[in-house]
Amino acid sequence: MYTHETQIRVRYGEVDMMGYLYYGYYSFYYEQARVETMRSLGISYKKMEELGFMLPVRDLNIHFIKPAYYDDVVRIKTMITKMPMVRHDFSYEMYNQNDELINKAVTTLVYIDKVSRKPVSCPAFVQELLKPYLER
Amino acid sequence: MYTHETQIRVRYGEVDMMGYLYYGYYSFYYEQARVETMRSLGISYKKMEELGFMLPVRDLNIHFIKPAYYDDVVRIKTMITKMPMVRHDFSYEMYNQNDELINKAVTTLVYIDKVSRKPVSCPAFVQELLKPYLER
Amino acid sequence: MYTHETQIRVRYGEVDMMGYLYYGYYSFYYEQARVETMRSLGISYKKMEELGFMLPVRDLNIHFIKPAYYDDVVRIKTMITKMPMVRHDFSYEMYNQNDELINKAVTTLVYIDKVSRKPVSCPAFVQELLKPYLER
Amino acid sequence: MYTHETQIRVRYGEVDMMGYLYYGYYSFYYEQARVETMRSLGISYKKMEELGFMLPVRDLNIHFIKPAYYDDVVRIKTMITKMPMVRHDFSYEMYNQNDELINKAVTTLVYIDKVSRKPVSCPAFVQELLKPYLER
Repeated sequence: MYTHETQIRVRYGEVDMMGYLYYGYYSFYYEQARVETMRSLGISYKKMEELGFMLPVRDLNIHFIKPAYYDDVVRIKTMITKMPMVRHDFSYEMYNQNDELINKAVTTLVYIDKVSRKPVSCPAFVQELLKPYLER
Repeated sequence: MYTHETQIRVRYGEVDMMGYLYYGYYSFYYEQARVETMRSLGISYKKMEELGFMLPVRDLNIHFIKPAYYDDVVRIKTMITKMPMVRHDFSYEMYNQNDELINKAVTTLVYIDKVSRKPVSCPAFVQELLKPYLER
Repeated sequence: MYTHETQIRVRYGEVDMMGYLYYGYYSFYYEQARVETMRSLGISYKKMEELGFMLPVRDLNIHFIKPAYYDDVVRIKTMITKMPMVRHDFSYEMYNQNDELINKAVTTLVYIDKVSRKPVSCPAFVQELLKPYLER
Repeated sequence: MYTHETQIRVRYGEVDMMGYLYYGYYSFYYEQARVETMRSLGISYKKMEELGFMLPVRDLNIHFIKPAYYDDVVRIKTMITKMPMVRHDFSYEMYNQNDELINKAVTTLVYIDKVSRKPVSCPAFVQELLKPYLER
């Protein structure tokens, strides 16, 4: 398993009338966590797009346990547990400042060729970088 | 089953570099569809909050089939298939202008008392309004 | 002067802890109003980009008078008072459901060639469509 | 003058079809910069709201010079040059990774009593903290 942690502070504009981080922004946070996880491996998502790969989300599942509040610094633990092929799965756990698990999510992304817009296999260099963490 | 349709035009600021409606905005669209579905039954979510009920989302599941593009008018079909108790489930189908199913989602919301912040039962007047559609 | 009116309902995710439409979303609303104003003239901004023109914002000035609240339907009056050349100015007034002026804004956009990314003149067909409204 | 610098990385969902940070998100960034500037002085905006003060924006002026791109880390220099009374002015300069000035903005905020929703004077403790920087 490859694991990476990202911290994000909840912005005023992202909070709703209940004083909670609006449910629609969790997907923004998880994307940021995902991109930072890839970066920590040496992979720039920006460069991936320049190399001709797109990585749209196919499935998003979020389970809301407790709210995050304005100005909280939430901690997101991103996990890659399976070697990406055409699909790339990420799972996430979000913790608040009291170390309580407040949110969980899973996303499935698909590698797509930018020109043909058809699914393709995960680039070999990504698989290489993940190998040490995913092999027994 | 109770069904309602909502149309939303994709805004420029909601589209990403791929030219697609950003995956994070689907939850904004589904909320709008949900609120309009309630309104079509004669229920104002705003009034519900004033009456002391909150309705945070507990689970969000989105399946992305095809992208929506900038300036597309998407059509969202919102469905209530089960009498809400403490939980209130909504399912959604999103269609593009060629009537292709491009996205599907399910959300589970929970009725919460605004003061105690504890789960409560769906208000009786909501159940009454839904009864004709959910009984055999 | 060319004038067009657009109505937008304030979404839950766009409202902040004060119960007000978050100040950052006014620019989203004014963009929607601007695009609908162009559409009412027969001009699709999407098609403009396909024709090779981009129209980024150069200046944004917003004056906040009164808040807009969740679920309000605000009415935006968009005005074009000057023939666009390289620059295209729009001014806006936002009214609430009691017909109170709650917000005012001005934006200056610049026509840019998509390939060279250099400023260019407003396309002639846009000027033609605006002529009847801007001549004495 | 009191000055503080904040760095923000441009998120995927905040970028538009041109590949630019969408013009609507600058106000989100400037708010984050403003809040961090206050925090660097020892003032939590969250606590200010708990103490009964609200600080809505009255005027927002943004001048766009060059775009910010996806994944860029922009640097925002926030400046307080005048002792806040009922109004509190902030000015901002945004720089890209090549240290080019790409954006400038000014915001005017107004201190409001949370209960009466009437303008009030800036709290004395805020003025005290700013005094050393604003006096000759």
